[in-house]
Amino acid sequence: MTRLSRLHLAMQENGYDGFIATRRPNQLYFTPAAEPVSDLPPVAYILYTADEVTVIPGQMFYYAARDGLPDCLVVETLVDGVDPVTALAQHCQRRGLQRVVCDRIEPAVARKLRADVPGLDIVEDARFGSLLRRKKEADELVLLRAAARISDLGIQAAFATARPGVTNREIAAAATEVMLAAGCEEVGLQVASGSGTAYMGTGSWVSQPWRKVEAGDMLLVDMGILYHGYLGDQTRTAAIGDPTPQQQEIIETVQQAYRLTRDAMRPGATAQSLYAITVDLYREKGWHPYFPHHISHGLGLGEDVPRIAHGSQDVLESGDTLSCEPGVYLPGIGGARFENMLLIRQHGAEELTQSPVDPVVGTR
Amino acid sequence: MTRLSRLHLAMQENGYDGFIATRRPNQLYFTPAAEPVSDLPPVAYILYTADEVTVIPGQMFYYAARDGLPDCLVVETLVDGVDPVTALAQHCQRRGLQRVVCDRIEPAVARKLRADVPGLDIVEDARFGSLLRRKKEADELVLLRAAARISDLGIQAAFATARPGVTNREIAAAATEVMLAAGCEEVGLQVASGSGTAYMGTGSWVSQPWRKVEAGDMLLVDMGILYHGYLGDQTRTAAIGDPTPQQQEIIETVQQAYRLTRDAMRPGATAQSLYAITVDLYREKGWHPYFPHHISHGLGLGEDVPRIAHGSQDVLESGDTLSCEPGVYLPGIGGARFENMLLIRQHGAEELTQSPVDPVVGTR
Repeated sequence: MTRLSRLHLAMQENGYDGFIATRRPNQLYFTPAAEPVSDLPPVAYILYTADEVTVIPGQMFYYAARDGLPDCLVVETLVDGVDPVTALAQHCQRRGLQRVVCDRIEPAVARKLRADVPGLDIVEDARFGSLLRRKKEADELVLLRAAARISDLGIQAAFATARPGVTNREIAAAATEVMLAAGCEEVGLQVASGSGTAYMGTGSWVSQPWRKVEAGDMLLVDMGILYHGYLGDQTRTAAIGDPTPQQQEIIETVQQAYRLTRDAMRPGATAQSLYAITVDLYREKGWHPYFPHHISHGLGLGEDVPRIAHGSQDVLESGDTLSCEPGVYLPGIGGARFENMLLIRQHGAEELTQSPVDPVVGTR
Repeated sequence: MTRLSRLHLAMQENGYDGFIATRRPNQLYFTPAAEPVSDLPPVAYILYTADEVTVIPGQMFYYAARDGLPDCLVVETLVDGVDPVTALAQHCQRRGLQRVVCDRIEPAVARKLRADVPGLDIVEDARFGSLLRRKKEADELVLLRAAARISDLGIQAAFATARPGVTNREIAAAATEVMLAAGCEEVGLQVASGSGTAYMGTGSWVSQPWRKVEAGDMLLVDMGILYHGYLGDQTRTAAIGDPTPQQQEIIETVQQAYRLTRDAMRPGATAQSLYAITVDLYREKGWHPYFPHHISHGLGLGEDVPRIAHGSQDVLESGDTLSCEPGVYLPGIGGARFENMLLIRQHGAEELTQSPVDPVVGTR
């Protein structure tokens, strides 16, 4: 079945006569003729109905969308013409839509739609599209594996560059250079050094870019790269110089949390049972207050399921692609996170990322 | 006067007893002890009152904020503790606030504040903080000039790398490498080639990353880099090979629009008079429908004023820092944009970016 056929079936099963995609991952996935997928022009709304794909570009992008999507109905939205929200309402009305699902919709847009299209029922459901994108196609797995390969190179370049006196920024630059040369189209890196606390993050993706690495630091490198629109994601942590017993304990415990959680990942495993494996391990050490984030997010074009975190009700399925990334961040001591990309198979998890568990530091 | 003193004075003049900053540029600018400015940990809300700066981190970032901002009151927000919105309401209430201004606030948060703090008047004003950040301090100008220098290197590397057979992605990678090596902490690039239309953009910052440049193309490179948090921004356009007369006309007209608009930029010039200079030039050629964007945005930490665009009521002041970036994108032919960073001085605009008007192509 094609992606659009699966979408139409899901709409029918849920009683929707339209799907309004405002989120780019859904737009990329369901729009025919965006080839390669990452080349879709920026558009405000795509309205999918049983027999049409109606593209409503932002006013700056009408010509780009018209020329880039010859197989779609592209609505003319120009600076001095109709605005995208009005155009969306017009098209909902013309098609006589009664109940549409949106991945996300701003309150003001929903109000305008309800005012302009009397009786229109608008359901906001962030998971509707994500669930249809959940099981990756063979071509998508090829891209995710390639993204993992590129991230393997970048993480090794980052740690190889790290030594006392080198800035966080320089570590990020070295990894970025390697991954861009290897063929990814976008790179974001989190490089955090020191005895940081909590998530170790700052508002910039590179935490404290101008800080110089010092002997005795912990160094954490996380990344988010895009390869043909697909996410490559990986985290490693190491000490700079010989680790102290405490640093060693943090790093080993996080790696153990990763292994225990990964080993329990198979079809049917619940998010809560998997989340508990890591939290229980930390609880034995009194560290559970210092693990503030998720264990897993889905992998793909973005906003993917499943999610393993406090409160998630997801259950793993064969074919899921997701991260596994326990971390812990002890105030005054340091933090560690360990992350791989996984593919869930019938008998367990296959690791897509394959750089060494303990990266080589300072050899470059 | 210190930044905080100026903030307090503006609050007093406008009858506000609190300023809630949710936008990072305002948080970076007004929070003491974030040194360098880009190292502020990520926080949800900062509440500025006459005598206190209250930092309310997201639940993942409490420890990072506590340890990174020793001079601020950092509210304890933990995963199993009070959530940031509740904490914000509590602090508004404890201080007996009656009328606060926010740079941006989500409707749900505003509702919660109004429910929890009876009588609280909440004014949303995106420009309140931006106007206080408008006139750059000497230290900020040093950083903006350095960001411009770095962007000069990147734009030249991009065009020098461009020749038939090279992908847009490779052009971006070359420019990124040069600018990271030159010391900026973040790079975003728009590289668009071909006979693109409209804004020439795609959803990815690199338009069609896998497209190979061809002889006869137009090539447009825009960038947004950060140096210590400050934006470097520049655009150039060139033909690949000898330009056709039409391509030459597009490039020269955009450069002329830039020069005419820049030459009219001085204290007292209105946004509408400046915008009209470019539009009138295009109108003579019938091109005005194909210029869908602004002429100028302010430069600094982000979300800066002034803005020169359709409808803007801004008036230039001495000391303003802003882009000047007319473009035009003719369906079926090609598009061009030309952009420099400017500093408005008493007698006119000084160009901060200084790479050649017509970049050298394909020499690398």
